Amino acid sequence: MTPMTLSQALAAIRPVDAGKIAAVQARLDRQTKPRGSLGRLEEFARHFVAITGREEIRAKHIYTFAGDHGIADEGVSAFPKEVTPQMVLNFLTGGAGVNALARHAGAEVRVVDMGVDFDFTQAPKPIDRKVARGTKSFRRGPAMSREQAVQALETGIEMAGTAQSEGVDLLGTGDMGIANTTPSAAIAAVFSGLPVTQVAHRGTGIGDATLRHKIAVIEEGLRNNAPNPGDPLDVLAKVGGFEIGGIAGLVLGAAACGLPVVVDGFISTAGALIACELHPQVRDYIFAAHRSVEIGHAVMLERIGRQPILDLQMRLGEGTGAALAMSLIEAALRGLREIRTFDEAGVAKGSDQ
Amino acid sequence: MTPMTLSQALAAIRPVDAGKIAAVQARLDRQTKPRGSLGRLEEFARHFVAITGREEIRAKHIYTFAGDHGIADEGVSAFPKEVTPQMVLNFLTGGAGVNALARHAGAEVRVVDMGVDFDFTQAPKPIDRKVARGTKSFRRGPAMSREQAVQALETGIEMAGTAQSEGVDLLGTGDMGIANTTPSAAIAAVFSGLPVTQVAHRGTGIGDATLRHKIAVIEEGLRNNAPNPGDPLDVLAKVGGFEIGGIAGLVLGAAACGLPVVVDGFISTAGALIACELHPQVRDYIFAAHRSVEIGHAVMLERIGRQPILDLQMRLGEGTGAALAMSLIEAALRGLREIRTFDEAGVAKGSDQ
Repeated sequence: MTPMTLSQALAAIRPVDAGKIAAVQARLDRQTKPRGSLGRLEEFARHFVAITGREEIRAKHIYTFAGDHGIADEGVSAFPKEVTPQMVLNFLTGGAGVNALARHAGAEVRVVDMGVDFDFTQAPKPIDRKVARGTKSFRRGPAMSREQAVQALETGIEMAGTAQSEGVDLLGTGDMGIANTTPSAAIAAVFSGLPVTQVAHRGTGIGDATLRHKIAVIEEGLRNNAPNPGDPLDVLAKVGGFEIGGIAGLVLGAAACGLPVVVDGFISTAGALIACELHPQVRDYIFAAHRSVEIGHAVMLERIGRQPILDLQMRLGEGTGAALAMSLIEAALRGLREIRTFDEAGVAKGSDQ
Repeated sequence: MTPMTLSQALAAIRPVDAGKIAAVQARLDRQTKPRGSLGRLEEFARHFVAITGREEIRAKHIYTFAGDHGIADEGVSAFPKEVTPQMVLNFLTGGAGVNALARHAGAEVRVVDMGVDFDFTQAPKPIDRKVARGTKSFRRGPAMSREQAVQALETGIEMAGTAQSEGVDLLGTGDMGIANTTPSAAIAAVFSGLPVTQVAHRGTGIGDATLRHKIAVIEEGLRNNAPNPGDPLDVLAKVGGFEIGGIAGLVLGAAACGLPVVVDGFISTAGALIACELHPQVRDYIFAAHRSVEIGHAVMLERIGRQPILDLQMRLGEGTGAALAMSLIEAALRGLREIRTFDEAGVAKGSDQ
């Protein structure tokens, strides 16, 4: 099957069936519990069934996109750039946070090289979709060309299509790329219109001086590039990253394929926001995994219009939050499938039922 | 093995080993992730290992205690009293919310009849520890005698001992008892000193008029009984419930046996609060599962000094929140066991590491 192009994916996105939402809620309301008493679990069940028409998850895949960033050379991160390929190898051999939490959730992790500055010559290898060996620093000029931005998006779209053909019912996003909170904060600033100081934060753990420098670098990049918030591709090209483009594409592709997608944390949400700015109905296919410690996260979640499932003060990325949230969505579906109705269980209804 | 008495259990409670907490954190800090980036998952892992000395959960049991309430006859609930035994049967045959969510978490549900106004004559039967066929209404006099309160507590302590002998490493609490948000709100009011209006809420879904009546009934009960907040047994006897006593005993027994216990929602927290008021070190053995919709919940959690793991606007009880939270604690332990260190994975450390 030929993967969809960006414009094909955009044309394929349909609104989620609101009728199904009501039908699921009607069934939840007949179950042996006070109405609405499972709170947001009921929302997760409604949402999942409305998107997929299914009540059970056959397979869950987390796509962790990796890429390097020219901006890392500006001294904005606590970690050296060689950590990107090192962590990719850690993912491939199952030793990272996302691997542990995905195993717990029964999800598979797929690692996509979107633009790591390293040649993976020995097995195990990531899925090779390298756009280039890292973006350029966006301090003085664009991070990538518009064509590269489209290529990154279409890679993510391709992965959603692959997942669909493999019988995956729930997708998750993840990221790896040293310095990638810097482009993510830039994206948050562009779309929210907020000052950089309100969306840039400590990433992997930088101190005050590095944070001030990071903010100044982003401000300079935004001044020099003047990304146009009305043109999400322009934003991705000028201040984004290859893995952020991959994530945006996966989220867009999920919507195009009619698959729900659990968006991880800060970097993933920057990708998801680009997808939502490209097509407003994309948001209906999104579950927001968790509230990150990064201060710019809430701003983007609000713009997408999704409430996070978890709030555990996490800030690791990789897809770790997505893995945890997937398990809660699965719990919600179990509730939908397995809780008996008042009639089935022979339980008297309350005066409010 | 003879079960512990209340005074034996109180005497057996030891402080949690703070040295173990530091040792676990040191290992988490060597793992391939920015320090502290798994947020509260790291706290869960530290907390569990400090209590148990283990890094893996062999078995998880949720004890769902059921009891009837004389106060139900005062018209404080949306559901009729016969729902208590009907739901007990639903639990025993696996059709309720707690069963579905416990299956998801890989936990076993044990149902204890603490005082249901029904004779369970046919299999499957709950564990029979009936103190009486329901409490008396606490509107004009005590809900139970002091001896009955001790009996309820010792039943919970017994269950913790049974769990320990069965190799259970994580306990969860659950409740069933029509009208039991009413005694729970009374308990919250007694220990917090707050007016009843600030701790009583809609329970299974009562309207405004019933809520006003419920508040008036609790106020009357507190006036007539004058429970002494310095004497937790007095509070349990005068305005508590048999299942609340069972929960308090399980939490106390968990601390006495050195087992961590996940406390479910509003009613379970009322039980846990009684246990904590009986012995201040009990709180160190508690995980708070979730933040209930009931307004009096936060007050009690604050008094216990535990932050809830989840906030999903749930208000079902039964142990449903405990089941979900157990799975997150298990995820945290998987992270502890399975994430490689920087040295193991050959990943460069950051400047903050």
